Amino acid sequence: MTHERFGIGLIQLPVAADKEATLASHESAIREAAGRGAGIVCLQELFASPYFCKASDVERFNLAEPIPGPTIEHMQRLGKELGIVLIVPIFERRAAGVYHNSAAVLDADGTILGVYRKMHIPDDPLYYEKYYFAPGEIDQESEPGERGGFQTFDTKFGRIGVLICWDQWYPEAARITSLLGARVLFYPTAIGWHPVEKEVWGAAQVDAWRTIQRSHAIANGVYVAAANRVGFEAEPGTGGLEFFGHSFICDPFGEVLTEAGTDPAVLVAECDPAHIEDTRRNWPFLRDRRIDAYGSILSRYLG
Amino acid sequence: MTHERFGIGLIQLPVAADKEATLASHESAIREAAGRGAGIVCLQELFASPYFCKASDVERFNLAEPIPGPTIEHMQRLGKELGIVLIVPIFERRAAGVYHNSAAVLDADGTILGVYRKMHIPDDPLYYEKYYFAPGEIDQESEPGERGGFQTFDTKFGRIGVLICWDQWYPEAARITSLLGARVLFYPTAIGWHPVEKEVWGAAQVDAWRTIQRSHAIANGVYVAAANRVGFEAEPGTGGLEFFGHSFICDPFGEVLTEAGTDPAVLVAECDPAHIEDTRRNWPFLRDRRIDAYGSILSRYLG
Repeated sequence: MTHERFGIGLIQLPVAADKEATLASHESAIREAAGRGAGIVCLQELFASPYFCKASDVERFNLAEPIPGPTIEHMQRLGKELGIVLIVPIFERRAAGVYHNSAAVLDADGTILGVYRKMHIPDDPLYYEKYYFAPGEIDQESEPGERGGFQTFDTKFGRIGVLICWDQWYPEAARITSLLGARVLFYPTAIGWHPVEKEVWGAAQVDAWRTIQRSHAIANGVYVAAANRVGFEAEPGTGGLEFFGHSFICDPFGEVLTEAGTDPAVLVAECDPAHIEDTRRNWPFLRDRRIDAYGSILSRYLG
Repeated sequence: MTHERFGIGLIQLPVAADKEATLASHESAIREAAGRGAGIVCLQELFASPYFCKASDVERFNLAEPIPGPTIEHMQRLGKELGIVLIVPIFERRAAGVYHNSAAVLDADGTILGVYRKMHIPDDPLYYEKYYFAPGEIDQESEPGERGGFQTFDTKFGRIGVLICWDQWYPEAARITSLLGARVLFYPTAIGWHPVEKEVWGAAQVDAWRTIQRSHAIANGVYVAAANRVGFEAEPGTGGLEFFGHSFICDPFGEVLTEAGTDPAVLVAECDPAHIEDTRRNWPFLRDRRIDAYGSILSRYLG
């Protein structure tokens, strides 16, 4: 595996209902990121459509596509042309009645390295994801590395992990993906403010969101890169959602290298495998884990 | 268990070699915290002496005391007089050759509720803790609640958890203690700057230390209270350590309620069990944990 430095890029955009326009705006942003040195570019969660989970509507299953399918194939061609790795999060139709919130990882030659299927599925007002998505699963019968669940992908620029949105609140997901050897944890995201909550809670929500993800970098000595969408999306009968952006990339000690606000943005930062090595030598947390004493973490509750 | 609000207090002080003076300064600070409304007061790690682990010196085992012993008995009398719960971290002599970095939890009537023995033991330049301390252990043969390891304590003011310093970098420790029902995670601490590193790394170290602990509050929906010492402590042949303070208390969404700098300080903040309930309803992370998929967290490494 290469020990050379590599650039990573994040795309933060608003999304409209016109899928061709959405593909075009993302293609333009990906080209910009590649031009600025990104070898791996990550799009935001469910990038190809508005965040449809704001209501439970059976017609919206029509937004799903297989992997591979038209959107993934478009990105395979684009990534191959640019010679970059792409993380492409879409609404995946796996079979009739089996849909996932997924991210395909495409190597720099356009090959599909694999698919991560969101493991933690939220269900909150205007985020009705349990209606749409079966959670990702672990197939214990398969070979290690092919079991699904938390996993990594060996790209041209090294081993990476992908987790999606709600996964970001779970230290277990970051830990396992890091122990699998990921150098970077990517978090494609779609998180926003309820407009009625924004004034009182908005800043605290962004801060908690940033803090929990920076903590994964610190605990595990990995880079973390979170791509979130922006823009207001209406939903009839509701106040809609204002996606809050604030995409960022931080280093293995949690220091923010680059960060967006609530405007559209293309972020690029450099990852240095030597910095992971150095950080983990000076703060050797992985050495002292009490793997003999963590068994009860597999319980729902212990009180 | 009470659902009433209660105050918690943290003591942040420099420590000199004169043990009587150290006990006196801490007693004074505890009285101040109690007077300001703290029902539970937590002292800093190994509060009764300078941070002796800066060198491996067999004579320093003489600093250890049993639990109960003179220091704990002093604090039992003080806590009973004031009607407050005390978390008293000391160098514990459990038996010849069996020493721990421990914290005794004393209920408001002076009863010793139990002892937490530090589970994650660091070993870094000037923090030679593996020389002095056997790690805390889990006794699988014992009844639940008496197994040691990560545990909680049912005090007059509700169930609390105690973890010590290096434990703070491990999300697993915070998770298990929270699942056991802790409303507050206390982190008595002794962390400082190497003077040669302070200018370049000092701010980032404090920020990482604060961030990882705030993340435990967020991930688990609990209050977090970290008490760290202050002051420069010399060690012959070395540059010594400058303990960086910055003790703080944050709420179940990670918002800092009160925070010290590098001066001596007594911090007091109010904990509201209803705020834990409310936070966990609005950000229901515990509902969606994938306990079927976390098994590999018990591995040292998976890459």
